[in-house]
Amino acid sequence: MRQRNLSRVLHTLAEGPLSRAAVAARIGLTRAAVSTLVDELLRGGLLVERGPGRSGSVGRPGTELLLADRGPCGLGAEIGVDHLAVCVMDLRGDVRVRLEHVSRGQGSDPAEVLALVGEMLRRATAEAAQAGLSPAGLTVAVPGLVARDTATVLRAPNLGWHGVDLAGLLPVDLGPVAVENEANLGALAELWSAHHGTPGRDRLPGADSFVHVSAEIGIGAALVVDGELLRGAHGFAGELGHLPVHPRGRPCSCGGQGCLETYAGAEAVLRAAGLEPGPGVRMGALSARCEAGEPTALRAVRQAGTALGIALSGAVNLLDPRQVVIGGALARLAPWLLPPVSRELARRTSVAAGGRNSPVPVTASPLGPDGPLLGAAMSAVRAALDRPGELVRGRAAGARWTATGLGGAADGASA
Amino acid sequence: MRQRNLSRVLHTLAEGPLSRAAVAARIGLTRAAVSTLVDELLRGGLLVERGPGRSGSVGRPGTELLLADRGPCGLGAEIGVDHLAVCVMDLRGDVRVRLEHVSRGQGSDPAEVLALVGEMLRRATAEAAQAGLSPAGLTVAVPGLVARDTATVLRAPNLGWHGVDLAGLLPVDLGPVAVENEANLGALAELWSAHHGTPGRDRLPGADSFVHVSAEIGIGAALVVDGELLRGAHGFAGELGHLPVHPRGRPCSCGGQGCLETYAGAEAVLRAAGLEPGPGVRMGALSARCEAGEPTALRAVRQAGTALGIALSGAVNLLDPRQVVIGGALARLAPWLLPPVSRELARRTSVAAGGRNSPVPVTASPLGPDGPLLGAAMSAVRAALDRPGELVRGRAAGARWTATGLGGAADGASA
Repeated sequence: MRQRNLSRVLHTLAEGPLSRAAVAARIGLTRAAVSTLVDELLRGGLLVERGPGRSGSVGRPGTELLLADRGPCGLGAEIGVDHLAVCVMDLRGDVRVRLEHVSRGQGSDPAEVLALVGEMLRRATAEAAQAGLSPAGLTVAVPGLVARDTATVLRAPNLGWHGVDLAGLLPVDLGPVAVENEANLGALAELWSAHHGTPGRDRLPGADSFVHVSAEIGIGAALVVDGELLRGAHGFAGELGHLPVHPRGRPCSCGGQGCLETYAGAEAVLRAAGLEPGPGVRMGALSARCEAGEPTALRAVRQAGTALGIALSGAVNLLDPRQVVIGGALARLAPWLLPPVSRELARRTSVAAGGRNSPVPVTASPLGPDGPLLGAAMSAVRAALDRPGELVRGRAAGARWTATGLGGAADGASA
Repeated sequence: MRQRNLSRVLHTLAEGPLSRAAVAARIGLTRAAVSTLVDELLRGGLLVERGPGRSGSVGRPGTELLLADRGPCGLGAEIGVDHLAVCVMDLRGDVRVRLEHVSRGQGSDPAEVLALVGEMLRRATAEAAQAGLSPAGLTVAVPGLVARDTATVLRAPNLGWHGVDLAGLLPVDLGPVAVENEANLGALAELWSAHHGTPGRDRLPGADSFVHVSAEIGIGAALVVDGELLRGAHGFAGELGHLPVHPRGRPCSCGGQGCLETYAGAEAVLRAAGLEPGPGVRMGALSARCEAGEPTALRAVRQAGTALGIALSGAVNLLDPRQVVIGGALARLAPWLLPPVSRELARRTSVAAGGRNSPVPVTASPLGPDGPLLGAAMSAVRAALDRPGELVRGRAAGARWTATGLGGAADGASA
């Protein structure tokens, strides 16, 4: 119970600095109980004080508490189809180190890719150590299906990985390790940053219930319902890319026919725009052509938007979300992609709109292609905040962590 | 807290008779605490004892507790497109009275329909009173969109009702009243009867996570995720009938094009089979022709199954359920409808199947067209079990109930 209350104090302060009294009001404990918890967290180095009182003076009016920007940190890694990225995020949610590497993921050897990711993580944590940060957990974003509560990538067709268990390939000294689908992490980043109140950004009106589309080569979606990610019975929910949009249309690599991905996937759109897909030739080039008013490019994006709008009409009719968010690489095409998407939604979701004349709003994610990496690091930070006792112990003893799958992290979360 | 624990005892016994010790083990309270709660419920007439001990002797080994089959009962009512039905269900879940009325719902006057339903409820409760049952709440199933936590039918196109608030049209003396979409209630009946362990029926393997399709004229679906109904942000989730299956296909009354309903709705299927839709000409006639091997009928059902399979492929790719259940009027066509549905799912959901070679299983609901009415009554019973104090008080004082919308019932549930 004490661990749980320590964790509640940390999560409350993850939304921004507060006084002790405000923390007590938010979590419904007495001021005295909160002061005791806060003292323990200050001693453990997980919180700091700021304000008119000198640092360390307890409970002076006006003194604000905030999460430490030294000590434990979360690590995020992203295995993309044409890039690798890692970042270090402190408990406040600020990215402190970020490294990227352009790579060709298609047909890659998982062991080689993971060795490279491990090397990047070592460099990033060494740099973070200079700022007094030590790793307290890692989440890895992958563009594929991850079996629920495991580190096994069942299918990542755009990497050519099938049934790869990453558990043995990930570093063991960075804290608990989790592997998660990148579309899910992009959506969680959206959810968490909407709640976090990122400066300069209003909280999204439909922040607790939305369909989040992301795309690199494939098209994935993640469904957030009442603030929770809908994972599906096996962890495979959100396969928007394989919704049939023209059931007698183009054959798809999945064995189906007329799947959304064959009309709006990056490869299909690039080809329709007259660009040969390949490493480095991505959405950036296409959006440049659209900006230049190039008719073939504009037509390609419009057609993709129409297909995406048809598939999303299905999703909206089924799920009745408050909002549709377009993230990932597609977010860059928003000015040209969103109008046809909105048009299809307006035509095809009047019933789900319950007689309201306004269809569900569609917006581009402000996080754009950074969503999955940020979501991965946020996920590691949030998991760490679930285990305050371990954070303090790990720090005190300089203990080495043992790697676990998501199951392990979830156990920690419920402890 | 006491009310909550009384309610937990009642809900535990709703799954079947148990000894005091078994109840204590299930809900994690001490034997002594459970005995006190049970005594109160026995005195209130909500439980009875059965077994070797004489009735009233406390805690004798082998004595089983079960919910009373007298006293409070739940009422269900169904407003269908061509029929009205009401039933009385005791706390054990047994239907004790059931009345039906063939009617023409299309273009009907809500006040007249509700007056008729009220009359049927009065006859049913009078009959139930003979068996010592008194109403403790009513749930009404309607074939349309109901605004979340209200009694307002926003759209019921097959009745021609738009923006009708039923609150003032429902009886005020039958306990708390709730209005709910019929597809949702059909799915809840499926969920609850799977858990209840109906005699002669195995618990469904995917009982906690499924897509439940129901159809009368329209096609609706309800999504059950981890044992909870997914309602959507406004209460409109599950509009499977308006998933675009052929986006450039037939115009739909919703303003869209190529919606599932235009291919697999009852009217479309009956016409394709050469039957003129109308009151009394429904799925029964069509299934008779299929049984007789009539080629036009078989082809019509096969085409409907293909369209349904395309739409369900979208739903399965998005939601990753453990099972698809076909309920309502379509359940009667199962022998001819399920093969094309399964074939489309097998072709189009290999990604969502995560590399497993077996697509999601599709079954016909054993409840069939009875699902919504049973779900309505079960919903009223379950809401009553959430308010044990009121049940006892209502009984003792002979108090008249006041009608409330779902919001009121939900308040009761959380008290």
